[in-house]
Amino acid sequence: MKKTFLLLSVLLGIAFALGAQNRIQTEEVSSSLLGHSVKVNVCLPRYFESSDRHYPVLYLLHGLYGVHTDWENRGGLRAVLDELNGTGEAAEMIVIMPCAGDPDVQHVQNGYFNMPGCPYEDFFFEELIPAMEQKYRCGGAKQLRAVAGLSMGGGGSVVYAQRHPDMFSSCYGMSAWLDNQMNQVRQPENQDNKLYITAMSVREHSALDFIDNADEKTVQALRGVKWFLDCGDDDGLLQLTTDLFLKMKRRGIPCELRVRNGAHTWEYWHTALRLSLPFASRNFTF
Amino acid sequence: MKKTFLLLSVLLGIAFALGAQNRIQTEEVSSSLLGHSVKVNVCLPRYFESSDRHYPVLYLLHGLYGVHTDWENRGGLRAVLDELNGTGEAAEMIVIMPCAGDPDVQHVQNGYFNMPGCPYEDFFFEELIPAMEQKYRCGGAKQLRAVAGLSMGGGGSVVYAQRHPDMFSSCYGMSAWLDNQMNQVRQPENQDNKLYITAMSVREHSALDFIDNADEKTVQALRGVKWFLDCGDDDGLLQLTTDLFLKMKRRGIPCELRVRNGAHTWEYWHTALRLSLPFASRNFTF
Amino acid sequence: MKKTFLLLSVLLGIAFALGAQNRIQTEEVSSSLLGHSVKVNVCLPRYFESSDRHYPVLYLLHGLYGVHTDWENRGGLRAVLDELNGTGEAAEMIVIMPCAGDPDVQHVQNGYFNMPGCPYEDFFFEELIPAMEQKYRCGGAKQLRAVAGLSMGGGGSVVYAQRHPDMFSSCYGMSAWLDNQMNQVRQPENQDNKLYITAMSVREHSALDFIDNADEKTVQALRGVKWFLDCGDDDGLLQLTTDLFLKMKRRGIPCELRVRNGAHTWEYWHTALRLSLPFASRNFTF
Amino acid sequence: MKKTFLLLSVLLGIAFALGAQNRIQTEEVSSSLLGHSVKVNVCLPRYFESSDRHYPVLYLLHGLYGVHTDWENRGGLRAVLDELNGTGEAAEMIVIMPCAGDPDVQHVQNGYFNMPGCPYEDFFFEELIPAMEQKYRCGGAKQLRAVAGLSMGGGGSVVYAQRHPDMFSSCYGMSAWLDNQMNQVRQPENQDNKLYITAMSVREHSALDFIDNADEKTVQALRGVKWFLDCGDDDGLLQLTTDLFLKMKRRGIPCELRVRNGAHTWEYWHTALRLSLPFASRNFTF
Repeated sequence: MKKTFLLLSVLLGIAFALGAQNRIQTEEVSSSLLGHSVKVNVCLPRYFESSDRHYPVLYLLHGLYGVHTDWENRGGLRAVLDELNGTGEAAEMIVIMPCAGDPDVQHVQNGYFNMPGCPYEDFFFEELIPAMEQKYRCGGAKQLRAVAGLSMGGGGSVVYAQRHPDMFSSCYGMSAWLDNQMNQVRQPENQDNKLYITAMSVREHSALDFIDNADEKTVQALRGVKWFLDCGDDDGLLQLTTDLFLKMKRRGIPCELRVRNGAHTWEYWHTALRLSLPFASRNFTF
Repeated sequence: MKKTFLLLSVLLGIAFALGAQNRIQTEEVSSSLLGHSVKVNVCLPRYFESSDRHYPVLYLLHGLYGVHTDWENRGGLRAVLDELNGTGEAAEMIVIMPCAGDPDVQHVQNGYFNMPGCPYEDFFFEELIPAMEQKYRCGGAKQLRAVAGLSMGGGGSVVYAQRHPDMFSSCYGMSAWLDNQMNQVRQPENQDNKLYITAMSVREHSALDFIDNADEKTVQALRGVKWFLDCGDDDGLLQLTTDLFLKMKRRGIPCELRVRNGAHTWEYWHTALRLSLPFASRNFTF
Repeated sequence: MKKTFLLLSVLLGIAFALGAQNRIQTEEVSSSLLGHSVKVNVCLPRYFESSDRHYPVLYLLHGLYGVHTDWENRGGLRAVLDELNGTGEAAEMIVIMPCAGDPDVQHVQNGYFNMPGCPYEDFFFEELIPAMEQKYRCGGAKQLRAVAGLSMGGGGSVVYAQRHPDMFSSCYGMSAWLDNQMNQVRQPENQDNKLYITAMSVREHSALDFIDNADEKTVQALRGVKWFLDCGDDDGLLQLTTDLFLKMKRRGIPCELRVRNGAHTWEYWHTALRLSLPFASRNFTF
Repeated sequence: MKKTFLLLSVLLGIAFALGAQNRIQTEEVSSSLLGHSVKVNVCLPRYFESSDRHYPVLYLLHGLYGVHTDWENRGGLRAVLDELNGTGEAAEMIVIMPCAGDPDVQHVQNGYFNMPGCPYEDFFFEELIPAMEQKYRCGGAKQLRAVAGLSMGGGGSVVYAQRHPDMFSSCYGMSAWLDNQMNQVRQPENQDNKLYITAMSVREHSALDFIDNADEKTVQALRGVKWFLDCGDDDGLLQLTTDLFLKMKRRGIPCELRVRNGAHTWEYWHTALRLSLPFASRNFTF
C-alpha cells in the first residue's frame, strides 16, 4: 500500500516543486599535507546536462565542531539555492563544503588555519582548491570564486580573503569568530586540547589585528574583494563583527554590514543564505 | 575526547542562543470515535515555569502523507517560534500538531474530514480540542484559538474555520488544497484507495463551494474570523487560493493574500511560519 | 542665520548619504507622429564621469492621469536606486520616464497605445526609444533594455513586451490594468471623453486576449522575455494579474508573480521598485 | 475637462486604496516655559468615528534642522501606517510630531534637551504631553505611550526614555545621535551658534554616559522599557548605536538592534517605520 501511495505521490506533479535542480554528493579529497583524506560535500547545479558549461564556485565553511554535511543537513542549503536559482537571484554555481576537522576523530584537528600537525590553510589553497577546480568545470580565477562561512568558518572565510585577496571576488562572514583576544570562545588550560589549539590559531590569525597592521598596499588589495558581515543581535560574537566593520570603514575598505534578529543558531545561518548566495552571485564576473 | 568537546561547548555560552525556550513533546490522544489513539506533537513555551499562566493555542496541520512530527522535523517550527518570541512578534503560545492519518498504517485514513470509517473532523472537535485544552492551560475560547496548515492541512484549516467560525479567531491556509473538482490532486479509480477517499472528501468539502453557497448569516459569521491565504507562485495549487480569495472579497469577507516566490515545498512553509505565527498572535485577544 | 545652518549642514558629512549618485533631468522629445513634443524624465547614474561607458536602460511607465515626474516625486525612484546601486542589487542604469498624456492639456490623450489622433505606441518605438538611445550611451539592444510600469503603465509595459518581445529582456508589471472587459476602470458613455478612449484602447489591447490568441510561434517569442507581475491583495485590479499569470503558466511561459500587502497606492509602487530594479538588472546581459 | 477627470477618478473605486484612514492635522501648543507656541503635527486614526475610544500614543521626533511636518512630507508616515493598520501589524494609534526648533526662526533653538533660554525637555514633559493627552483620548499611562525618532530625534527619544522610563513602554531610536564626544556632528567655535548649543546639549545628555553611570536601581528601571536601535551600515553615526547597544547588553538591559542597508537618509527612516510602528504596537498594553 505504501508503494501505491508513493507512486501516487509522483502523480501530484502539478503541486510539486519544479525547481529542485541542485544535487549534493560527498567526496574525499586526499591530502599529503594533512596525511589523511578530507570529506567534502559538493553541491552541483544541473552540471551533467552540459559537458562544457563552466560554473562559478563558492567555498562554504562550517563552524566549530561542525562537519561537511552541516550546510545541507542543518542549514538547508539546497532548498534555498533551488529557490534563488529560480528567480535568478542566485547564479547557478558549485558549492564546495569541506570538513575542517571531525569531532569524532581524535587525531583530526578542528580549524581553518595552520596548526601544529595540521596545516589546514595550506591544504585548502594548495590541495583542495586545485583538486576541486580540476575535477569540476568551475572557478579557476578570482572573478568566479567566492568564500563564505559561519562562526569559526565565518572567521575562516574572512581571514582567507584577507590573506588571499587575489583568490576571491567576495567574502561573506556570518556570526564570525574573528579573534579570541577576549576569550570569546573560552579555551581550556590544557594545551594539548584541540579547542585550545583552535582558539590559539584564531587569536594568531585575528582579522582585527590584520586590519590594524595592514600597510597601504595591503589595504588596496583588500579593496579588491567585496565584503559582507552579518551577525545576529543576540549573538555573543557580535562585537567582533562590528569592530571589524568599523576598522575596515576607517581604512576605506567598503563593506556591507547587517545585524538581523537572532542568535548563534542554524536558523540565523539558514536565513543568511538568502543574502549570501545572491551577494556572491552579484560579484561573480562572467 | 568527544565528551570534553561537548563540555567545552557548554562554555561557549556567550555565543549561544539564549532564546531557545520552546519544547516539543509527543503524546497520544485516545479516540473512541476513531477507534484508535492519535499521535500529537505539542510545542510548549516556558509552560512549567508557571503553574497558572494561561496560553493561546494554535492548531497546526500537516499535509497529505504527513505526520505529527513534520512541522518540527521538516518545517523547523521551534527555531522560528523561538526567534519570533524573542522580539514579541509571536506570542508565547501552545502549538498542537495532530497526526491526520499515517502512511505506514494501512487501516488509518489520511485526511481532516469525516470519511467512511474515519470521522476525523468529529474527533478533532469533540475529542482532540477538549482533551488538549483540558490537559493544558490554553485556549478555551475562540479569541485564544487559531488554526493553520499546509496543503491538505491548509485546506483542512480553512474548511474547519468555515464550518466552525465560532471556534477560531484566525485561520492561515498555506498552499491549501481547497477543492478537488479539477483533480488538482489526481485520484486513482480504485475506490477503496486511501487517496481516492481523501480526494473525494476534499471535493465534498470544497472551500470554494462553501463560499458560493453561503447565505448572508454564514457570510456574517465568516467575517468574524481573520483569514490569511499564502501560496507560492510555482505551486500547482495556486489557482485554488486565488479563486477562494476573490470569492471571499466579492462576498465582503476580509482576507489577506500573499503570493511569494516558491513552490509546494517545505522551504515555503518554513518561511510561511514567519508570517503565520505573528498573524495568529495579532488576532488573539488577551 | 539660515545660511549658516545650511553651511553647517554640509559639515555633517560623516552622517550623510555617500551613495547619492543618480540624478534626474527633464527633457522634451519632439514627435512628428504626435504633433507635439513629449516631456521625459531621465534618471542618470554617474553618467558624466565617463565618456564611453555604455548603460542598460529601463523604460518606466506612469499610470492613468500621471506624468513623467511621478516616479520621482511620488515613487521616490532615486532614493531606492541609490540604495540598491550601493549593494549591487541594481545595476547602474538609465531610467527613462516619458509622459503619456497630460491631464492638464485637453488635446493630449492619456494612454500607451495608438488611439485616434494619438499614435503613442508608434511614437514610443519609432521616436522615443531611438531618440533616447542615440542621445545617451544606453540600450541599443534587447539584452540591455527593460520595461516596467504601474497600473495603466503596468498594462502598457506588459503589452509592449508582448507585442515587441524582441525589444525587451524583461518586463515588470505592477498593479497592471491589463484589460477593460469587465469595466475594471469604469468608462463614461461620452465617446469623445479621454477616459473612454483610453479604456477602449486598453480593451482592444487586452493582455489576456493576447495570450488566448497567441500561436505557438508567438508563445515561443514570449518565452524569450523575463516576466514579473506584482499586485497588492487590496487592489481592485488583482484578478487581471492572477488571470494573466495563470494563462501564461498554462501556455508554458515562465513568469514570476508576487501578491504583497497593499492596494493601488504609491507606497505599493515605491516598495515594488525594490523588486523591479533588481529584476531588470538580473536580466540585463553585459 | 480636468474636473471631469477628477470626477471619473472617483469612479475608479475598485482600484483605489480602501485603507486610507489616518489623517494629519497641524496644531499649535502654547508654552509658557518656552515663551512661544510650538507647532505639532498630529496623525489621527478614525478618531471621530467614535466618541469614547481611547488610543495609544506615539511621540515621533524629527532630526536636526527638521520640523513637525517632516515625518509626513519626507517620511511618508501615513502611507505606512495605513498599510500596517490594514494587516493589524500596527495598532490604531495617535502619532504626535512636535517641532523641536525651527531653522527659519532665529530665536528658536533646535534640540530636545534643556538649553539656555530653551527648556525643551521641560516643555515636552510638562506641557506637550499633558496638553495632547488631555485634548485627545490617548495615552495617559506608560503602557499606552511610546517614543521614537530619527537622528537628533533618535537621540532625543533614547535619552527621554532613559530619563523617564516610567513614561514610555517602548523606545525606538533610528540613526540616533547619542553623544557628541567625538564631534560626530562637527560644532562651530562660535558659542552663540545654535548648532554649537545643540551639540553641547547632546554631549551633556550622552546616552552612552548614562549607561556607564547608571546605578543598579536605574538599570532596573531601564529594563522596564522595550528598546530598539536601528542604524544604517553607511551611516556615520553607526558606532554610537553599536556602542550603546553593547553597553546595554553588558548591563543586562534587553535591546533589539538592527543594522540594515543604508545611510543617513529619509529612505532609511521611511523603511524604519515598518519596524518601529509594529514594535511600538506590540509593546502597548490594552
